[in-house]
Amino acid sequence: MEITKESIADWLKNLQIQICNTLEKADGLKNFTNETWERKEGGGGITRIINEGSVIEKGGVLFSAVSGDAPDFLYKEKEHTATTSSPYRKNEMGRLPQFFATGISIVIHPQNPMVPIIHMNIRYFEMSNGVKWFGGGIDLTPHYIVEEDAIFFHNELKKVCDKHNPNYYTKFKKWADDYFFIPHRNETRGIGGIFFDRLNSDDEMTFEKNFNFWKDVGTGFAPIYIQLIAKNKHKPFTEKNKQWQLLRRGRYVEFNLVYDKGTQFGLQTNGRVESILMSLPKFASWEYDFKPEKNSEEEKTLQLLKRA
Amino acid sequence: MEITKESIADWLKNLQIQICNTLEKADGLKNFTNETWERKEGGGGITRIINEGSVIEKGGVLFSAVSGDAPDFLYKEKEHTATTSSPYRKNEMGRLPQFFATGISIVIHPQNPMVPIIHMNIRYFEMSNGVKWFGGGIDLTPHYIVEEDAIFFHNELKKVCDKHNPNYYTKFKKWADDYFFIPHRNETRGIGGIFFDRLNSDDEMTFEKNFNFWKDVGTGFAPIYIQLIAKNKHKPFTEKNKQWQLLRRGRYVEFNLVYDKGTQFGLQTNGRVESILMSLPKFASWEYDFKPEKNSEEEKTLQLLKRA
Repeated sequence: MEITKESIADWLKNLQIQICNTLEKADGLKNFTNETWERKEGGGGITRIINEGSVIEKGGVLFSAVSGDAPDFLYKEKEHTATTSSPYRKNEMGRLPQFFATGISIVIHPQNPMVPIIHMNIRYFEMSNGVKWFGGGIDLTPHYIVEEDAIFFHNELKKVCDKHNPNYYTKFKKWADDYFFIPHRNETRGIGGIFFDRLNSDDEMTFEKNFNFWKDVGTGFAPIYIQLIAKNKHKPFTEKNKQWQLLRRGRYVEFNLVYDKGTQFGLQTNGRVESILMSLPKFASWEYDFKPEKNSEEEKTLQLLKRA
Repeated sequence: MEITKESIADWLKNLQIQICNTLEKADGLKNFTNETWERKEGGGGITRIINEGSVIEKGGVLFSAVSGDAPDFLYKEKEHTATTSSPYRKNEMGRLPQFFATGISIVIHPQNPMVPIIHMNIRYFEMSNGVKWFGGGIDLTPHYIVEEDAIFFHNELKKVCDKHNPNYYTKFKKWADDYFFIPHRNETRGIGGIFFDRLNSDDEMTFEKNFNFWKDVGTGFAPIYIQLIAKNKHKPFTEKNKQWQLLRRGRYVEFNLVYDKGTQFGLQTNGRVESILMSLPKFASWEYDFKPEKNSEEEKTLQLLKRA
């Protein structure tokens, strides 16, 4: 079967439903809302939000498929890297290249500080001139780093990668480590995961093989996260744990508003603000010059996040 | 008396003490901390923070005076605007131009949602090649806009401006309206105030006259704010008011992390993170697609903040 943009978007729409169903079962209390929106310039999306659940305090599973004239910077950027110079300028009919972009974005902020924050995104992009690629990733931000969970999480991602390409896990883990970093804090956002972009047919991988890898990242997300939920959701926690959770969420806000490329791109291109900023937690906190107690669990986590 | 950078920094240091004393009296419960820090490349500062006071939930009054080799972008930027081309490059001794920057920055987040957030900054900058200027401003971010308070606030700022130059209030009010704006929300951060930059000797104003104006902005801050505190600190408030305060603080975080030039400059130039981010509130909140109730006070405030 030919891989068309329509079939990819349909696959994603279906995945959105599956993921929401799985997360609703894991939450046990609340369901996701279901809101459809349209984009004036072409396309639209389905935004699904869960709020004040039993396990999830705030979470979003967002699908979108948008299209239209390729923005200036897109084909300008391409001119530098393209092997042929013509396809990125106006074609013979004087019409701008068209773009199509579809994807799912997920951020889950749990209630219990012992359950990690998770983020997942898979995206597909194509232009009328033939450019097309897959991007995405999954990364974990525990409020408290638990070695066993970190090993489990990375091992699951490694299995997904290894099934398709022996080099992908190492390469995409490094990419995540580089990307989910807060320079002004000299801290990683969490324990990383995998991150990849512009996959087409590199590394002896065909476009179709990368499509299969990309789909496995998407379907791999929910089973991995619900295991982390099940293992940690009943752990007891104190006021101090809750305060630390709010401070770590403050860092999450700093990363997303200052560095995250998707967020910046969205805000600068007049994207749908509520969808872009669904990644922000329900509550966050900043304390001046907060220092965790010596030898506390908070200090241990912070030391693991600090870059040497 | 000659206006030297040393005398300006001394004046600011003294103002910092005065402002903290006045705010401590207004709070009645907590005092400011007093922390001195040094900058490896030259200069340093005094950071004063108040936390969980009776009136002020989190506030900072920060003095700094830093110096050293002018960063690349500073003299590169100048090359475009300079009337002579030489002073901004290395001088005959092959030494980079030196810069000196001193100022006070204040952000106060009150406990009671009926008391507005306030921000004040005054800064002085000079370079060894003779470039020198004043900048600064005061702006107010009420969680609930009260017309009487807004009129009082702007009128006080107008008085400060009018004393020195009949054009300054109109000019600097517009500057504040343009600056304290959140494009992705199409909202102003608050009700504005005044904002100015690179004042030297324009508009029939000498450097000395602008210095006197600038000093009056600095000394004007505390008396204006303590009146707003006194008038509003005993007003009753509900859980709903508190929730709205947290959401408005979320907008404050969005502005400061995404748009504020001082914050961006600080984070990009490896500034002192805890000082730069003292502007962030102790607690903030984000709710997906929050819409205030019809005809509520929250809706009225939001309508006033939305740009037509």
